[in-house]
Amino acid sequence: MADKNRKWVLKSRPQGLVERGNFEWREEAVPSIRDGQFLVRNLWLSCDPTQRGWMEFDTYLPAIPIGDVMRSASAGQVIESKHPGFARGDLVSGAFGWQDYAVSDGSGLFPPMKIPPGVDLSTALSLFGITGLTAYFGLLDIGAPKAGETVVVSGAAGSTGSLAAQIAKIKGARVIGIAGGAKKCEWLTKDLGLDAAIDYRNENVAARIRELCPHGVDVYFDNVGGEILDAVLARLAMAARIVLCGAISAYNDFAHMPGIRNYVSLILRSATMRGFLVFSYAARFPEAIADLGEWARAGKIKNQVDVATGLENAPDALRRLFTGENLGKQLVKIADPSL
Amino acid sequence: MADKNRKWVLKSRPQGLVERGNFEWREEAVPSIRDGQFLVRNLWLSCDPTQRGWMEFDTYLPAIPIGDVMRSASAGQVIESKHPGFARGDLVSGAFGWQDYAVSDGSGLFPPMKIPPGVDLSTALSLFGITGLTAYFGLLDIGAPKAGETVVVSGAAGSTGSLAAQIAKIKGARVIGIAGGAKKCEWLTKDLGLDAAIDYRNENVAARIRELCPHGVDVYFDNVGGEILDAVLARLAMAARIVLCGAISAYNDFAHMPGIRNYVSLILRSATMRGFLVFSYAARFPEAIADLGEWARAGKIKNQVDVATGLENAPDALRRLFTGENLGKQLVKIADPSL
Repeated sequence: MADKNRKWVLKSRPQGLVERGNFEWREEAVPSIRDGQFLVRNLWLSCDPTQRGWMEFDTYLPAIPIGDVMRSASAGQVIESKHPGFARGDLVSGAFGWQDYAVSDGSGLFPPMKIPPGVDLSTALSLFGITGLTAYFGLLDIGAPKAGETVVVSGAAGSTGSLAAQIAKIKGARVIGIAGGAKKCEWLTKDLGLDAAIDYRNENVAARIRELCPHGVDVYFDNVGGEILDAVLARLAMAARIVLCGAISAYNDFAHMPGIRNYVSLILRSATMRGFLVFSYAARFPEAIADLGEWARAGKIKNQVDVATGLENAPDALRRLFTGENLGKQLVKIADPSL
Repeated sequence: MADKNRKWVLKSRPQGLVERGNFEWREEAVPSIRDGQFLVRNLWLSCDPTQRGWMEFDTYLPAIPIGDVMRSASAGQVIESKHPGFARGDLVSGAFGWQDYAVSDGSGLFPPMKIPPGVDLSTALSLFGITGLTAYFGLLDIGAPKAGETVVVSGAAGSTGSLAAQIAKIKGARVIGIAGGAKKCEWLTKDLGLDAAIDYRNENVAARIRELCPHGVDVYFDNVGGEILDAVLARLAMAARIVLCGAISAYNDFAHMPGIRNYVSLILRSATMRGFLVFSYAARFPEAIADLGEWARAGKIKNQVDVATGLENAPDALRRLFTGENLGKQLVKIADPSL
């Protein structure tokens, strides 16, 4: 056991892109635990767009206070426990933050959960984590695509988008992914088997949607918001469902984000646009994990991860989400299990 | 029976507000009917914001062709029939257009319906027409307010808005209406019994919503779109429902309508924004008409109508919807029944 707890604390609220300078590196003593608590050695960090919001303002969670450890979903190993539910050696996921060691009492919005035997930590944080659960419930519960319907997914080469797109294929939909760059688009069609891909950096998204969706878009799984959302709104099929999963195009500059102008299409097409927080589906997580696991074992979905190494590189890894450098789920590996 | 069919035909597509010059007055021969048809003497016209869309572009119906009679919901009396379902003397509602006489075969998006005995024509076109049905299904089916929830209605002194607001009161909600001018606001609170009203012409809507809805807005019944929709989006309660009934602020200038910027709230609040067309509820119209009639007889809802007189004044009556001059349902009375 190391004798220090290295951590990134929030130093300033970002303006625009997340910068390394928004964080401060500290090295503190490893915390000790009281009865009812356990100590986790953090091993993997999950990078999620929602963290950008937490850094700046209150969302569904209060903003991270300046000087607090950066909040993050993560996975680690229990190395000491005075909690009846967790034992030394247990592998757990939770919200342990950007630090080597965290103390938990087992509660929280992302309550620590034991990782089942045989599931590696990167999969626990991606396919079976918030990412996979968000894709599963957003697509199936809100989007509810039927076989033969046209599903469009933005941020399709990202973690949640790539899983949502593949689940839509499993359900028999015609699936079109939107991503940035020819390489990602090729990955979507060649590796993931989507029916078509639109490169928003090099193609006219509105024109391509018109071409590719002659009967309109039945389900739109949106990770980006802004102009692309507006372009899809202009091409809705009757009774279309828009799953508002994220709005990454807006996260770096809420004050100047463009409005969506084509929302009147929701009236003309009797369409629904719905946001959701995956935590409200907590009671159904086991059902989702069972399906996702079965699909992965059957080779029907690929769980793509993009791994950075070292706690010191967490700020840069998070930033990659907003520059579009990541392919699939962005993770940071801190260390291997030591027990 | 008159020897002429006076009518307004569409002469040009409006730019901005509807103008008298968008129509041309014609006097033609009264049409004759074939087997399977009947002739209606039009007596009352319904003025509806959706007509502005029909005049300019394809919506859920094709745009009205230039030179065709202006499309409109209306009510009249059958004066000659070769149709087995309609007899001379029957009072009927339908889409007979801005003209004295119309031929119908009983079909259409607004299929002609007999008006039950004892219901006057103005009530048939308002409380029991598209207006009342839209308020009923939009509020109850999509908004689904629970007792004690906060419901905000825009265009609350208009036809659909005033009914939706009163139905929300019947369901036990706290109801806040938004309307233009002190007189309308006083009518909402004094005559209709709403809990509060916001005068969007003289008050800061965002600030007043903040004041009046400290726990956020649970249901927003939107008739106006644009800036007011954006202001409400910023104050949603968790799991809020936005009923997109209309967007009258946008109808006169779609090309320059402002976008809504606060749609990201739909994600943060797990909220839903949904458009609808009342015709999809056709199978349930009898249920709605029964409830609306019972509430009206019990004095629980007031059906306010605003009546202009004379077919020649139809263009000005329609325009009143967009200048906000009407209180309640805008109608045009052409004549009394002659049989």
